Amino acid sequence: MQISQLRVNAVRLKDSLEAMARIGGTAQGGMHRLALSDEDREARDLLVKWLEELDLQVTVDQMGNIFGRRAGMREDLPPVLMGSHLDTQPFGGRFDGVLGVMGALEVMRTLHQHGLRTYRPLVLCNWTNEEGSRFSPAVMGSGVWTGRLKLEEVYSSKDTGGLSVKEELGRIGYLGETPCRAFPVHAYYELHVEQGPVLDRMGIPIGVPKGIVCIHWYRVLVQGESNQVGPTPMESRHDALCAASEMILHVEKVARDAQGGLVATVGRIQNHPDSPNIIPGKVSFTVDIRSWQEALALKAWQEMEEKFRDTASQRGCQVKTEVAWRVDHVEFHPRLVKAVREKAQSLGYKTLEMQSGAGHDASYMAMIAPTAMIFVPSIGGRSHVEVENTSWEHCEAGANVLLQCALASAQEEGGNH
Amino acid sequence: MQISQLRVNAVRLKDSLEAMARIGGTAQGGMHRLALSDEDREARDLLVKWLEELDLQVTVDQMGNIFGRRAGMREDLPPVLMGSHLDTQPFGGRFDGVLGVMGALEVMRTLHQHGLRTYRPLVLCNWTNEEGSRFSPAVMGSGVWTGRLKLEEVYSSKDTGGLSVKEELGRIGYLGETPCRAFPVHAYYELHVEQGPVLDRMGIPIGVPKGIVCIHWYRVLVQGESNQVGPTPMESRHDALCAASEMILHVEKVARDAQGGLVATVGRIQNHPDSPNIIPGKVSFTVDIRSWQEALALKAWQEMEEKFRDTASQRGCQVKTEVAWRVDHVEFHPRLVKAVREKAQSLGYKTLEMQSGAGHDASYMAMIAPTAMIFVPSIGGRSHVEVENTSWEHCEAGANVLLQCALASAQEEGGNH
Repeated sequence: MQISQLRVNAVRLKDSLEAMARIGGTAQGGMHRLALSDEDREARDLLVKWLEELDLQVTVDQMGNIFGRRAGMREDLPPVLMGSHLDTQPFGGRFDGVLGVMGALEVMRTLHQHGLRTYRPLVLCNWTNEEGSRFSPAVMGSGVWTGRLKLEEVYSSKDTGGLSVKEELGRIGYLGETPCRAFPVHAYYELHVEQGPVLDRMGIPIGVPKGIVCIHWYRVLVQGESNQVGPTPMESRHDALCAASEMILHVEKVARDAQGGLVATVGRIQNHPDSPNIIPGKVSFTVDIRSWQEALALKAWQEMEEKFRDTASQRGCQVKTEVAWRVDHVEFHPRLVKAVREKAQSLGYKTLEMQSGAGHDASYMAMIAPTAMIFVPSIGGRSHVEVENTSWEHCEAGANVLLQCALASAQEEGGNH
Repeated sequence: MQISQLRVNAVRLKDSLEAMARIGGTAQGGMHRLALSDEDREARDLLVKWLEELDLQVTVDQMGNIFGRRAGMREDLPPVLMGSHLDTQPFGGRFDGVLGVMGALEVMRTLHQHGLRTYRPLVLCNWTNEEGSRFSPAVMGSGVWTGRLKLEEVYSSKDTGGLSVKEELGRIGYLGETPCRAFPVHAYYELHVEQGPVLDRMGIPIGVPKGIVCIHWYRVLVQGESNQVGPTPMESRHDALCAASEMILHVEKVARDAQGGLVATVGRIQNHPDSPNIIPGKVSFTVDIRSWQEALALKAWQEMEEKFRDTASQRGCQVKTEVAWRVDHVEFHPRLVKAVREKAQSLGYKTLEMQSGAGHDASYMAMIAPTAMIFVPSIGGRSHVEVENTSWEHCEAGANVLLQCALASAQEEGGNH
């Protein structure tokens, strides 16, 4: 059988996704499997069992990242990696992360079933704490592995109950001894749900992201004047929540008017003193701006800040802003991106070039190795919520593209790109 | 000496206000003396000590309301009452409530000093838990006394620590045995800070409220759609916080455009899931509408609801509203209101006819007895905050008006009005 004829087993893939969805599954059909929780341990144990059934060499590093290595003909050459993460958002969905791991597992199973040995080794990876919901920062395991985060710093990160990453890694039995440090990688592929509505709306099964947008986070503090509501006439007020409401609509408008698919969001707001009969005196909120072009994101922020100042001064309020976090945009490797598109098309799938609006383990991997992602549609564009969904047919399509891309890279001779 | 020549002692009044301000005083010059706290006990103990020094007959009722009765020549006639409350908002001010009690005390001390016996008895009252910050509902002591609230229901009201009103009354030693039930009252006067900016801005020392506005509380729930921020284009969003922001600005605009000094406020907001990188899916907020005319308040709400529905439908969100609480407006007794104005003017003070935008113990008292209030300026209109302030000169002016009004009513013959 020619390797271009090889296909994953859709039923087996569905079974493994469903088995994973039972570990931390919620009554509403979603997932609640926070990083390093008992549920995460159970999911990891199941993954390790499956990897061992395929005779893969399993290692766990100091960050709890799990690697399952399938030997190649040339064990001295850098391997091809495929992976994502098994942890989920609180009350998140069944596909975000887990599809990339189960897709990689399905690739391994398909090769195992056909007794096919690749030229280069293949490695499946499950990265620790991609979501960052329980322990900050997010994208932790791949961040340390690629040298972008410091091991000792993230070890001491604590959840709201005061438990640290290192303690919890130890408790669930995944504090490994292998150094958490990148080895040479020939190529990294990550299959993932789009988490947006574009593919679903256009009826296209495979998205080909050219990279990941920049992510800029800001904090905004609006200072007004608290007062008893009744005796304070409308024209005497300096209502911080009214000012913030105007600002939130400015954020939306600037993003809507911007070019290049820029998005901006106020996701969190705190109001003080937050009492029904006191005029709000102080409001803080977050702004998240994402764009393929840093310059557009910075320009949008500049416009927002100007409008914030106008609003504040018209209302007799003060406004302060600060940069909370900025991550540059990441471009995937053109040759791998092209491979994803061509393999998908040769499998008969329509493709769409796009960009990833969300951060992924691939963000860090792209900094040290040729990297590409494969997107499949999210039904209704819903993600990070319990109703997150992707059709089994599209899961299969994504896994087949992953299989063909990984195989093609694994058959390549020579050194790294 | 003619009683119209009688004046309070400004230095003594200031001293008693300052002594009270030390009990639960904050580092920023405000007050934190929550109802039935240790600080409230200490303030009550000091008041009782002062009342006993004047040979007043002190009683404490089942709600912890404190009465200090000064005998009149005709003990069979209904007395004149003066009072307010010693409890404060969390991190509130030094004058809200306490001025009405210290003003009444100063009236008693002035009469005592001059050995003057009035025709009718005079009673000072300190009402329990006017603020309602620790135990809900507010205006509790006078509410039960006037039969508007049920004793057993408010006894079981609990603070966030699970302590009940009845337990805390017992603990601080103010669970009295006198039935909490109104006796016949000839007149009730309450001296209070305006809590708004009008008198201060106009430079007028005495405000003469004709009554208290209606207070209508509503809850609004906006349902949008949560999603990962990055991959969700601006035009695909149903952002509940953006929708709520528009609604909050509608509330402000409808109130600004309304007639008759109507005010409306969104004081409390809750955002869900309140995460920087998730589009808000659910937001709830409160609306407080106050007006002298119920009809205007109801019309304003109707307009707001229409605009809420427009906003929701334009944004693909849902909105639900509900009435949380409605209190009708209260009109004070025309004869007593006239007396406040005339006594103030005969003392040489400019007066302004106004309305109270805040609820007071006088709200309930007006339902069972002829009632009026005396307002003095709040500097900068600030109230329910630590910087709340009133000049000593205006405290003195207000106490003198209280003295003259109470004396005039106390000299009246015949039965009740």
